[in-house]
Amino acid sequence: MTDRGITVPLGFRAAGIHSGIKRRRADLAIVASDFPCAVAGVFTTNRVKAAPVRYSLEVVGRGQAQAIVANSGNANACTGAQGQRDAAEMARLAAEALAIRPQEVLVASTGIIGQPLPMEALRTGIPRACAQLERAGAPAAEAILTTDSGPKTASTTLEVGGSELRIGGMAKGAGMIHPRLATTLCFLTTDATVSPDCLDAVLRGAVARSFNRITVDGDTSTNDCILILANGAAGGDPITGGAALGRFEASLHEVTSDLAEQIVRDGEGATKVVEIRVTGAASDADAERVAYRLANSLLVKTALHGAEPNWGRMMAALGSAHAEVSEDLVQIHIGSAHVVRNGLGVADSLSAATAELLGTEVDLHIELGLGEGEAAVLTCDLSEEYVRINGSYAAESGVVS
Amino acid sequence: MTDRGITVPLGFRAAGIHSGIKRRRADLAIVASDFPCAVAGVFTTNRVKAAPVRYSLEVVGRGQAQAIVANSGNANACTGAQGQRDAAEMARLAAEALAIRPQEVLVASTGIIGQPLPMEALRTGIPRACAQLERAGAPAAEAILTTDSGPKTASTTLEVGGSELRIGGMAKGAGMIHPRLATTLCFLTTDATVSPDCLDAVLRGAVARSFNRITVDGDTSTNDCILILANGAAGGDPITGGAALGRFEASLHEVTSDLAEQIVRDGEGATKVVEIRVTGAASDADAERVAYRLANSLLVKTALHGAEPNWGRMMAALGSAHAEVSEDLVQIHIGSAHVVRNGLGVADSLSAATAELLGTEVDLHIELGLGEGEAAVLTCDLSEEYVRINGSYAAESGVVS
Repeated sequence: MTDRGITVPLGFRAAGIHSGIKRRRADLAIVASDFPCAVAGVFTTNRVKAAPVRYSLEVVGRGQAQAIVANSGNANACTGAQGQRDAAEMARLAAEALAIRPQEVLVASTGIIGQPLPMEALRTGIPRACAQLERAGAPAAEAILTTDSGPKTASTTLEVGGSELRIGGMAKGAGMIHPRLATTLCFLTTDATVSPDCLDAVLRGAVARSFNRITVDGDTSTNDCILILANGAAGGDPITGGAALGRFEASLHEVTSDLAEQIVRDGEGATKVVEIRVTGAASDADAERVAYRLANSLLVKTALHGAEPNWGRMMAALGSAHAEVSEDLVQIHIGSAHVVRNGLGVADSLSAATAELLGTEVDLHIELGLGEGEAAVLTCDLSEEYVRINGSYAAESGVVS
Repeated sequence: MTDRGITVPLGFRAAGIHSGIKRRRADLAIVASDFPCAVAGVFTTNRVKAAPVRYSLEVVGRGQAQAIVANSGNANACTGAQGQRDAAEMARLAAEALAIRPQEVLVASTGIIGQPLPMEALRTGIPRACAQLERAGAPAAEAILTTDSGPKTASTTLEVGGSELRIGGMAKGAGMIHPRLATTLCFLTTDATVSPDCLDAVLRGAVARSFNRITVDGDTSTNDCILILANGAAGGDPITGGAALGRFEASLHEVTSDLAEQIVRDGEGATKVVEIRVTGAASDADAERVAYRLANSLLVKTALHGAEPNWGRMMAALGSAHAEVSEDLVQIHIGSAHVVRNGLGVADSLSAATAELLGTEVDLHIELGLGEGEAAVLTCDLSEEYVRINGSYAAESGVVS
């Protein structure tokens, strides 16, 4: 059974409908709180920012919000002044229907870039969606998808000072996990009472250890955003710091990690999830460079897809990662198979390595033998299917254009 | 008719045979000069360097050589001390057969990483190949290929001080042009008289404007090398600088550009060659970052493959290139179709853009409107075929392993 996600916390309702941006599939989601919320957000660092990102950045800057209106099928990016007006109108339409202020409505969009939003569809769709708000999370989680194969939701509970608190979330991902141009949207809700500043701090912490391990970081799409709303509906003392905030962050991390992993698992055309762990690097930064280099290598990704234990490509990739590497200290493990010992292939490990690669979850461990630096990255393989999907995006995503 | 390439210059002979490293195809090439040559080389900067690269670096360091022995089907990389001994033995075998010193034999290998070289095949193969040296270049050009669809040769002539001089070359490439992990080998010959220092300078200049525009640069395979031998067989005055050296460099650039373009054209699974030109950047470095970001973007490459004028992906890619970008100053042209004007899509340009993308040669021009920075990169599209080839490399390249 799918987790209700964003409606697990008390006082949140959601809706997802087909407004007409896409041909058939749901394309419009509303998440609304019964009470004003503290808000925090992490946004794309792309120099080209979609209109809804610019709008929501301002809302988050004020620290308070009560609803999210999000559409799929159209990114409202590279749409100029008209795009800004359209994002603002989306917020206004939702605000009117919910009887709140437009300054308290976050806006998010994902889909094709450079087309004007079909506002006619949204002018009737947004009020209609707001009239359908309910304590179910599934329709909203469906409505933000693009090429995803299914909705992604997660939730958890924790106890702080005798109060039970809830955290829920939903996300969309798909697209290739690297390079990081596919849009990630993630909306998180909680019925805890947390100030915007504390919320911002824990969100950044949780994102650094989850989404930033897969996709949303320095190089992102025009539309990426991760938003969290805290409405305090559970009662209980405000979480202001110390152990309580630490536990809240841990629980939030549980939800964001779960969602991030669901995104990798659903990478376009992906047939396996690959964790690349690098240890023994001269520094954490070096370890990260090596992990990302492998995760980004087309040759490594296609070998993983073909279940070929081609550790030579891994050696070539790590050698070109601009990190300190001493060839004869390198160890590579594919699952339990020790395929490279001191820089040299271990011939009798290859059938065990192939067996590991035939699974749908693969652990790749690179030990550089130089120091204490560590990093881990989650990625997926690269299949013909990925190319097929991305060679005909408009057709796949069912966008009317 | 295929250019004779490396045997166009006087005093060079070559051979290419099947020694038994691969199942069937030619896998061993010899290029030899009748006279001692000045030598220069540009090698991979990968921290993991193949044994032949280490060997040839030393030869080039001494500035003099007379022959190249090169094999395909096995990279002799990540092969430890045994690999070093094998590379040295290849040089020794060729030197004995040619009655020269092993210190004057350059060694190059390409193929699978981490397997010991099948020295039995080479111990009989190298003397046999040396006995077949002739003024034809085609067999040698065939013998260095891996997944290339055909040999790559080029040559030109120039006149300096009344003497006709010749420059010839052969190369192998294939593999994906970006990321830059596929091995590039390029051997160049000339009958001009040029000192090792001058040769080094002009080679670096020519490579910077040809191979470095496509593949061999900071991030390279374990085995990349570009070598040039100058034997002075044409007579004439030594080229030591000034206008003569300038003309020699221009002619060398003609040959390396030709070979580099042949490599892109033969990218694995490539169906079109794409030139990405960036102008109006705040700096040349910024322009290069934007050009490479687009050339490396899977989403851009798959859209090019599908002939989709998806300029939104281009905007997203250039915005994440860590370069100065002002969204509303950006112009994008696909061939003659002006698809983005001041950061906004030009709707009625799309059918013209699609027509451009259906061709096999595509020009992409990004104008950033900020300054005088410029760069250009040659790349190719990404097809299902690429994934198929690289998911089963051993099978494709006919390697016995």
